[in-house]
Amino acid sequence: MEKTSTDALPLTVNSLEKQEAICIFGTGDFGRSLGLKMLQCGYPIVYGSRKPWMSSLLPNGAEVLSYYEAAQKSDIIIIAIHREHYDFLTKLTEVLSGKILVDVSNNLKINQYPESNAEYLAQLVPGARVVKAFNTVSAWALQSGALDASRQVFVCGNDSKAKERVMDIVRTLGLTPLDRGSLLAANEIENYPLQLFPMWRFPLYLSAVLCVFLFFYCVIRDVIYPYVYEKKDSTFRMAISIPNHIFPITALTLLALVYLPGVTAAILQLYRGTKYRRFPDWLDHWMLCRKQLGLVALGFAFLHVLYTLVIPIRYYVRWRLGNITVTQARSKKENPFSTTTAWMNDAYIALGILGFFLFVLLGITSLPSVSNTVNWREFRFIQSKLGYLTLILCTAHTLVYGGKKFLNPLNLKWHLPSAYVLALIIPCTVLVIKLILILPCIDKTLTRIRQGWERNSKSALNGKTDI
Amino acid sequence: MEKTSTDALPLTVNSLEKQEAICIFGTGDFGRSLGLKMLQCGYPIVYGSRKPWMSSLLPNGAEVLSYYEAAQKSDIIIIAIHREHYDFLTKLTEVLSGKILVDVSNNLKINQYPESNAEYLAQLVPGARVVKAFNTVSAWALQSGALDASRQVFVCGNDSKAKERVMDIVRTLGLTPLDRGSLLAANEIENYPLQLFPMWRFPLYLSAVLCVFLFFYCVIRDVIYPYVYEKKDSTFRMAISIPNHIFPITALTLLALVYLPGVTAAILQLYRGTKYRRFPDWLDHWMLCRKQLGLVALGFAFLHVLYTLVIPIRYYVRWRLGNITVTQARSKKENPFSTTTAWMNDAYIALGILGFFLFVLLGITSLPSVSNTVNWREFRFIQSKLGYLTLILCTAHTLVYGGKKFLNPLNLKWHLPSAYVLALIIPCTVLVIKLILILPCIDKTLTRIRQGWERNSKSALNGKTDI
Amino acid sequence: MEKTSTDALPLTVNSLEKQEAICIFGTGDFGRSLGLKMLQCGYPIVYGSRKPWMSSLLPNGAEVLSYYEAAQKSDIIIIAIHREHYDFLTKLTEVLSGKILVDVSNNLKINQYPESNAEYLAQLVPGARVVKAFNTVSAWALQSGALDASRQVFVCGNDSKAKERVMDIVRTLGLTPLDRGSLLAANEIENYPLQLFPMWRFPLYLSAVLCVFLFFYCVIRDVIYPYVYEKKDSTFRMAISIPNHIFPITALTLLALVYLPGVTAAILQLYRGTKYRRFPDWLDHWMLCRKQLGLVALGFAFLHVLYTLVIPIRYYVRWRLGNITVTQARSKKENPFSTTTAWMNDAYIALGILGFFLFVLLGITSLPSVSNTVNWREFRFIQSKLGYLTLILCTAHTLVYGGKKFLNPLNLKWHLPSAYVLALIIPCTVLVIKLILILPCIDKTLTRIRQGWERNSKSALNGKTDI
Repeated sequence: MEKTSTDALPLTVNSLEKQEAICIFGTGDFGRSLGLKMLQCGYPIVYGSRKPWMSSLLPNGAEVLSYYEAAQKSDIIIIAIHREHYDFLTKLTEVLSGKILVDVSNNLKINQYPESNAEYLAQLVPGARVVKAFNTVSAWALQSGALDASRQVFVCGNDSKAKERVMDIVRTLGLTPLDRGSLLAANEIENYPLQLFPMWRFPLYLSAVLCVFLFFYCVIRDVIYPYVYEKKDSTFRMAISIPNHIFPITALTLLALVYLPGVTAAILQLYRGTKYRRFPDWLDHWMLCRKQLGLVALGFAFLHVLYTLVIPIRYYVRWRLGNITVTQARSKKENPFSTTTAWMNDAYIALGILGFFLFVLLGITSLPSVSNTVNWREFRFIQSKLGYLTLILCTAHTLVYGGKKFLNPLNLKWHLPSAYVLALIIPCTVLVIKLILILPCIDKTLTRIRQGWERNSKSALNGKTDI
Repeated sequence: MEKTSTDALPLTVNSLEKQEAICIFGTGDFGRSLGLKMLQCGYPIVYGSRKPWMSSLLPNGAEVLSYYEAAQKSDIIIIAIHREHYDFLTKLTEVLSGKILVDVSNNLKINQYPESNAEYLAQLVPGARVVKAFNTVSAWALQSGALDASRQVFVCGNDSKAKERVMDIVRTLGLTPLDRGSLLAANEIENYPLQLFPMWRFPLYLSAVLCVFLFFYCVIRDVIYPYVYEKKDSTFRMAISIPNHIFPITALTLLALVYLPGVTAAILQLYRGTKYRRFPDWLDHWMLCRKQLGLVALGFAFLHVLYTLVIPIRYYVRWRLGNITVTQARSKKENPFSTTTAWMNDAYIALGILGFFLFVLLGITSLPSVSNTVNWREFRFIQSKLGYLTLILCTAHTLVYGGKKFLNPLNLKWHLPSAYVLALIIPCTVLVIKLILILPCIDKTLTRIRQGWERNSKSALNGKTDI
Repeated sequence: MEKTSTDALPLTVNSLEKQEAICIFGTGDFGRSLGLKMLQCGYPIVYGSRKPWMSSLLPNGAEVLSYYEAAQKSDIIIIAIHREHYDFLTKLTEVLSGKILVDVSNNLKINQYPESNAEYLAQLVPGARVVKAFNTVSAWALQSGALDASRQVFVCGNDSKAKERVMDIVRTLGLTPLDRGSLLAANEIENYPLQLFPMWRFPLYLSAVLCVFLFFYCVIRDVIYPYVYEKKDSTFRMAISIPNHIFPITALTLLALVYLPGVTAAILQLYRGTKYRRFPDWLDHWMLCRKQLGLVALGFAFLHVLYTLVIPIRYYVRWRLGNITVTQARSKKENPFSTTTAWMNDAYIALGILGFFLFVLLGITSLPSVSNTVNWREFRFIQSKLGYLTLILCTAHTLVYGGKKFLNPLNLKWHLPSAYVLALIIPCTVLVIKLILILPCIDKTLTRIRQGWERNSKSALNGKTDI
């Protein structure tokens, strides 16, 4: 700007119009970082502080005044102060009247106070227009510039013009404002940064329970049983062999659990004869975390692949194979080639690879940036058609792996079947139900229900007129 | 809000200004879901229905009135009705005059009607301001809240103020509006949700054709030939060995086909002496689906890696290696170590790994969210420089794999060379042409052409002044 | 539109209001592509050209006039001309007065001129309102339609209304405008497209140096040493064995270097007794490129995994294992099974797999689209907790791999220890320091400092009131 001779031009005087000063109450870490960022984006900044003469390390170019003086200088005041210390604002009611107060505070616990901080602020300073914003952005991210354009800033407030002005500032800082409606939404917005993977809990707990159960199951069959009957120390199996039983079983079970709520919902709709009755809460919640279930399953499948591929590197395997060859060499016996075994063995490996490949595809398309580039029809094609194909391939992989020895009584140890037999229960159930549901007669009824038809209703026509 | 004493304050009265009522015609699935979402975001909702007394399961808080009454209550009317039933709107022409009608409808087929639904609606109710929006969002996504901020809502319309208001609503719902211009764009917007991977068709069909051809080629060489001459049953090779020939060949061919249109275009530009003549349509289309070609190639490369890594686990391989060792042990002969074989073997494996690694890098950078964080220069560096390096490494991998037996007449079966020889044709062609194109004399001419120079033109200077 | 009878309706006349004509000076490649795109989005386009009668291949529907005539037709003029040829604009000062000039130019080098092109333009035509925009978008992307909604267009300018209008056009073209403030930002915006991975340089150079050093270290130990003492040709080891030493060491070292700046910063804060003093520049820069360091480390880890998994396919390994078995078969000696070896071997493999799995998880969550869907707490949980767990697992993997032979004098060759011993230096240092830092007494002080407490300050209370 210095290089342009602006003084002669009435037009460029406009250019300063955006550069309205912004006032920040509080010189804490977040207040400083936000102020620095705003300065960099061209906003003059005035800090309000209890002890303006003591403030250190504030960004260069920012003014520091008392709360009262600072508030006078700007229309927009960012309250970068903990909720516990909001009381002093009541003394400033007059000067704050009509101004936009931006509440950026967070709490330490979810639902810590009966009302949200922003609503509390609005009560304290009834003359001001309170907007909730910036609480999801961290001081560190502001300082370091590690901000993506799509980093969301949730904004809410009762005054739409105040909100619009705050959202303009958010946009200028290179962030994406997201209007969440009135100040009632402040509670949800304040809880958001305190969440720790709420949708992942059920899948993770479920898989942990499954893993622990399967671990003991396998330890009994593969470690304790041989120790009791053959006095053989097989504890080393706990590092690789047993996990490589647990992981694929967990993966397949979780994958089947992704598709179980869908078929359950279909049965429920068929039974009720309408889609216009809410599902039970547990089913709703289950359907909402299918993506997470699937991704956890993919994690276990990935581990299974790695554990399988290292097999030939293991000392135990090399020792065993070496011994077999040595025995054969000494015994002068031929080891005839079995085409059936080769077929079975190659088939289950190939099925597993193809299943894993499709599974990885499903995982990639569930990345937010990928799923945003496909339309609804494509998304459903992938998640439903490809998903079922993956389930079929993985189930077939397990079935062929079992092969002839499947349910063979000789494989029972203390009446316990091999662990992989357990892996097949849920997938096979899901696939059988799905097979029944796509029988033409049942599928036709289901499709009609999903298009709005109701078995016991006269408003059936509704579904044909309206979208 | 209940907690704030708003009655005394003229300021917060503004807060209700945004909460303009929205009217929804039609109580179908989509109408209900959209209404519920809007209610949650603070908009009062009025439903218009043929039989308002019969409506069930509408979201709590929504009013249901006759079409006429509902239309009176709001400026913005969402027409959640199938196009076939739009006729009744002609009776409401008066009350709809000047109002914003939002067409959310979709068709069952691409280009089902001569004009788009939104244009048809504008014809039916000429006094209304029609805006097309929301047709790409699914009822399920609205209901379940499975919406990302970047989920795009295409908006178009002839009245910019009407469009702006609809886009504000879209933003408030947490969606991203995308202005696509005038109502002429409605046709394209209505076709969008009906598409099923249009850019992926050519790559997928092409790779399917390649795979089928290679499958028969390999079956003839590896299954039928040994059966005819040695009566050996090698059908089990169809599970892993033959796919592991097909996949790498398809991957390498497709990867080369990613770079073939680029060199073809360069030759065409050199021949024509200008870049200002359109390429033939097939070349344009080919260039637009290079990313998809590359990703399909990456899929096949991934399968090739998995199929290769499971080799030592296979029964057939273990049986064969065991037999070789047994024979050697019995024969009392030494098996001397060949440094050349070790070199060749390790080299082609290492080349393959490095090629695959770069290929995965290329794939990751083609993810939308990653490619958006790099600038144009970085994107071209990756896709062009790293891309060619990948092609070179993968071609070298195949060449060294062939090694000494490459084109050896002893490897011909029924005059057919090994399948991998076929894999080299296109990659080597592309690399040779590229090598010629980067010769200084040719590269200089090409660069001048690409900067706007024309061989037979006086407007050559243009290219130097203008960008 | 043709199908609607608009003539009778005053309302739809508004519909043309958006369709303000846009003028483009310059008919070069970018000018044409931008004009075509704008035409498609419904803007009438007028080209300004030195020789309007000579222009070829301009998009259909665009008018071509002299500069003067074209400028008269529109409020917004896009200057698609190289900076070197801006001079002629001084002659048009009058007609350009008050108009919006959009500077779309780029330079060939970073900081090529003392002032940015946009500032230079503002100096040349002082009466115009200059806005910088579109310079990050390529002509090819505009032509081919390969544009994502999140493709960012940086916009800056001194006149906020002019900027707003340009941003509206950007949005209509389906791009995302990003307001970067006043024209002072033009310099940065013009440098942006010229950057080539600035954040990746340090990690890549560092890993290159590490790799070269380790290569020579390993060649001395594994190739030259055996050649000198046993006259054995081990050069073939350079293809796979030696890289498979280099890659894991580099990966582990880089991973530790991701966490070293964090503990260094903590020590510095503890020593200074405040967090309000800037870190040295090198530490700041190091902290900003931790993500890139981690991703490069992940790349090396990925290579290590692939190089390890191919081990049993290698000719050398098969030859060696075959020979061992043959020798054993002939010698009539038993090869007793060692449970300890099995344990150690399986444990280091399992630790490696789990470490790699968590490492991949870290990599996936650092994808922009994934990290945008988690809140700050979740992001820190992953990058800090899971990150340290990964480092612990990978360090343990290396320690157990070393096992009993770790620092065994017999493994020294020319006094050089095995390469993996070098890999442990930095990771173990980081882990030991971290362990000390999380001792309750030290952790408590550190937490207080990070909440704003200062050892030698009275303003300690500040940190408790303000955020």
